[in-house]
Amino acid sequence: MGRDQPLRYAGIEAGGTKFVCMVAAGPDDVGAQAKFPTTTPEETLGRAVAFFKAHEPFAAVGIGTFGPCDFDPASPTYGHIKTSIKRGWEVVDILGTFRRDFPVPIGIDTDVNVAALGEWKWGAGQGLDVVLYLTVGTGIGGGGVMNGRMMHGLIHPEMGHIRVPRISSTDEFAGICPYHGDCLQGLAAGPAIQARWGKPAEELPPDHPAWEMEARHLALGISNYICVLSPRRIILGGGVMQQRHLFPLIRKEVKRLLNDYIPSPMILERIDEYIVPPRLGDQSGILGAIALAQQTA
Amino acid sequence: MGRDQPLRYAGIEAGGTKFVCMVAAGPDDVGAQAKFPTTTPEETLGRAVAFFKAHEPFAAVGIGTFGPCDFDPASPTYGHIKTSIKRGWEVVDILGTFRRDFPVPIGIDTDVNVAALGEWKWGAGQGLDVVLYLTVGTGIGGGGVMNGRMMHGLIHPEMGHIRVPRISSTDEFAGICPYHGDCLQGLAAGPAIQARWGKPAEELPPDHPAWEMEARHLALGISNYICVLSPRRIILGGGVMQQRHLFPLIRKEVKRLLNDYIPSPMILERIDEYIVPPRLGDQSGILGAIALAQQTA
Repeated sequence: MGRDQPLRYAGIEAGGTKFVCMVAAGPDDVGAQAKFPTTTPEETLGRAVAFFKAHEPFAAVGIGTFGPCDFDPASPTYGHIKTSIKRGWEVVDILGTFRRDFPVPIGIDTDVNVAALGEWKWGAGQGLDVVLYLTVGTGIGGGGVMNGRMMHGLIHPEMGHIRVPRISSTDEFAGICPYHGDCLQGLAAGPAIQARWGKPAEELPPDHPAWEMEARHLALGISNYICVLSPRRIILGGGVMQQRHLFPLIRKEVKRLLNDYIPSPMILERIDEYIVPPRLGDQSGILGAIALAQQTA
Repeated sequence: MGRDQPLRYAGIEAGGTKFVCMVAAGPDDVGAQAKFPTTTPEETLGRAVAFFKAHEPFAAVGIGTFGPCDFDPASPTYGHIKTSIKRGWEVVDILGTFRRDFPVPIGIDTDVNVAALGEWKWGAGQGLDVVLYLTVGTGIGGGGVMNGRMMHGLIHPEMGHIRVPRISSTDEFAGICPYHGDCLQGLAAGPAIQARWGKPAEELPPDHPAWEMEARHLALGISNYICVLSPRRIILGGGVMQQRHLFPLIRKEVKRLLNDYIPSPMILERIDEYIVPPRLGDQSGILGAIALAQQTA
């Protein structure tokens, strides 16, 4: 690689439905990209390794992965996906697979932390000290970047699993979370909408009462995240948030719930700029993986 | 001050009920300490200034204050308490008062962020990357230290104001929060216990049903904080938590709510070490102010 060329990085967005692989220096300098469905670990990781072999060299690898996954560098199973939800992926050493083939630094984190990093680096969260990224789709997951670092602690955030009040005390929908029943994910993820109304979310028209209810559930979660984390911006992605008419409903309900208690003009006057879609569109995750590779290098 | 003497710092715990002032190098080297009730701003701040004048020199000042207070260094009212709850303290320039008299660096933050800092530096949170301190008393407030820094963002955490589900769908207690009614503070702060049961919390015997309910409300809040922040340790202080019999009730209920979803031995096996009282006793706040002065110097 010549001196004048910018360093390239490898990024992997490892999802339960599809994998995205990219070699890039940044959003405006993408060398190559591939997408393929998540099938068996052997086939899927084999395709990813083959893609990157064909596009060497790169300075580092960043992986944003579905989970649960072990992100504790001190653990013997660091970088292993351990999930009971996706068949065949009960224990898969995703980090080790790439380590065997690519002798460069490799970073790995949750899909949502990595998407938050992408939006912080190049998208709607640029320059902000606390950025929250929430995905609402098959599940609900939240990630964050605080002072330039992805959120970690005992493990990593599992924001979809907070408990929120019911909209109505007579609501008898049990929720679909296998662990918690009616946690936020159990009430408001895509499969919960489908279970409650008998149709996939994308088939419900914008004036269906499902959306008002969805906005109220999500607003309860978001107003709780505001009270706990005080984010500078909240970015909402994922399949359900493709329903753009949800945004004004959510913003209005968050304002109602907070009731002018948080004395910031971002909430009191400019909530349209506070709760926003990803600026990187559907590329937050894969560009976040490139950003993670840069941080890791 | 001789070369061999350690640097001393000034700390102020500014509470709505009492002020604590200290000059110290650390918890084992306290030069002087004073406590007095919070009366008018003139009298209270006057006593504090007089105390510190009598105990100069010190390298810096740290202030942990009740609020709401403006903690945005870019704001023209930075360091002003702005509260409608404590009469006479509607707008008080607490930072400016000390700046006028003491030409040293001065740091100011929320009482709970500062208490979290104290426990992180010298108490139950030593060496941990994410520490949560929650006070349960006249109100409910949470502060945190992440990677050595107190939590800030749009403003600061207002953790007591998250919404949680009711314990029972037939519960008709409206909650006592003037902004949100039945947010966590509205359901579980000391005055909520008194409003619900008609007696101050400290007069209720340990076998009173109030405590089981209190533990369940607090556990809902704490399990939500775990999902959002993934703290390494949760420290519970404040007047209500003087009822030590609450701790085992809370731990059991947090475990039940999380239902083995968070795969950490700290929760699955060692929750007695995870949800704990302050190790600094009632000194978390004032020693945190000393720690803040050290950070600011």
